[in-house]
Amino acid sequence: MAEDAPTGRGPYAKSALRRAEIIDSAISVFGTHGYRGGSLRQIAKQLDLGLTTVMHHFPTKVALLAAVLDQEDAADTDFLDRSARDGFLPTVLAIVERNLARRELVRMFAIVSAEATHPEHEAHAWLRRRYTTVVADYATAIVADRRLGRIRTTIDEHMLADLVIGGWEGIQVRWLADGTDPVAAMRALMLALLDPAED
Amino acid sequence: MAEDAPTGRGPYAKSALRRAEIIDSAISVFGTHGYRGGSLRQIAKQLDLGLTTVMHHFPTKVALLAAVLDQEDAADTDFLDRSARDGFLPTVLAIVERNLARRELVRMFAIVSAEATHPEHEAHAWLRRRYTTVVADYATAIVADRRLGRIRTTIDEHMLADLVIGGWEGIQVRWLADGTDPVAAMRALMLALLDPAED
Repeated sequence: MAEDAPTGRGPYAKSALRRAEIIDSAISVFGTHGYRGGSLRQIAKQLDLGLTTVMHHFPTKVALLAAVLDQEDAADTDFLDRSARDGFLPTVLAIVERNLARRELVRMFAIVSAEATHPEHEAHAWLRRRYTTVVADYATAIVADRRLGRIRTTIDEHMLADLVIGGWEGIQVRWLADGTDPVAAMRALMLALLDPAED
Repeated sequence: MAEDAPTGRGPYAKSALRRAEIIDSAISVFGTHGYRGGSLRQIAKQLDLGLTTVMHHFPTKVALLAAVLDQEDAADTDFLDRSARDGFLPTVLAIVERNLARRELVRMFAIVSAEATHPEHEAHAWLRRRYTTVVADYATAIVADRRLGRIRTTIDEHMLADLVIGGWEGIQVRWLADGTDPVAAMRALMLALLDPAED
């Protein structure tokens, strides 16, 4: 990060707090108006800050988007470890449950992902990279579970990863729209796809 | 529709053509910038028309959105008839295949649906109604196929409908992002969920 060097704990902590506030506001604004429809001006207004203050931390809208997306990616770095310990199905369900408390973030991701399918969108490369990484991680976790006899399906692991990811995205949009229980839906989906061993 | 009465075939046909052009342009603009991020001005510019001409046909952006959404809803009115004749799985797969040629429309729906999960979005009521209708239709089609022995799963028909719809939405976003074959994915999903009778 190319920020001014902090001169002590006070200013640095204040700056980090301000960045976090701006990122939270961006999640809310992009989750209402989309990335394309949102603006730094709206974010500044929501926080009752001047536009120049926001731009001191994030000079451009795309820099702010990158910070929002990076934050999320960092959240699931221990996925493979957790899956090896608890199994693929319980690990995914735990994230679905955690997301129940992150409605705005989930909506923001749904809108930005749909926008970012466009090859010229600022997050297009991020979206493609994200799919590649998540499919690879899920396929690895599925292979490991299959070896351990936790899941019994014969469907190819990359196809299974695709279907879990695809189903999850649609199920979360449905939840956001009308409250349909995403944990129950994901459990039913994964039971049908994975054919897990009974406890 | 509250349009001026046509004075003959010529003006009416011209007006209908103009409306269709504006709707096509709206699909492209909303499918790039979202509904929230798109504007009648952008649509006018794309068509090289004056804003007043666009507003003669669609006085507000939400009127244009309604026309776009209505058009799509009209496209699948014969779903239950087709499913009764051909079966649920082949009927859904035929729509997935048809959508391969409607990339912009599919992207527009993905973005607008994600935006419209917000209770204050102009298409929120439409989105909820759409889910209710599609789930009911799919559940009906699934029950009919089960009676005919075409599908053998014991999963509740409403849950199955939820999972087919959710999976489909995520699978289409993935296709738009990186080209992953949506027909193969939907086939694999439905085979796992429905356990169809072999031919």
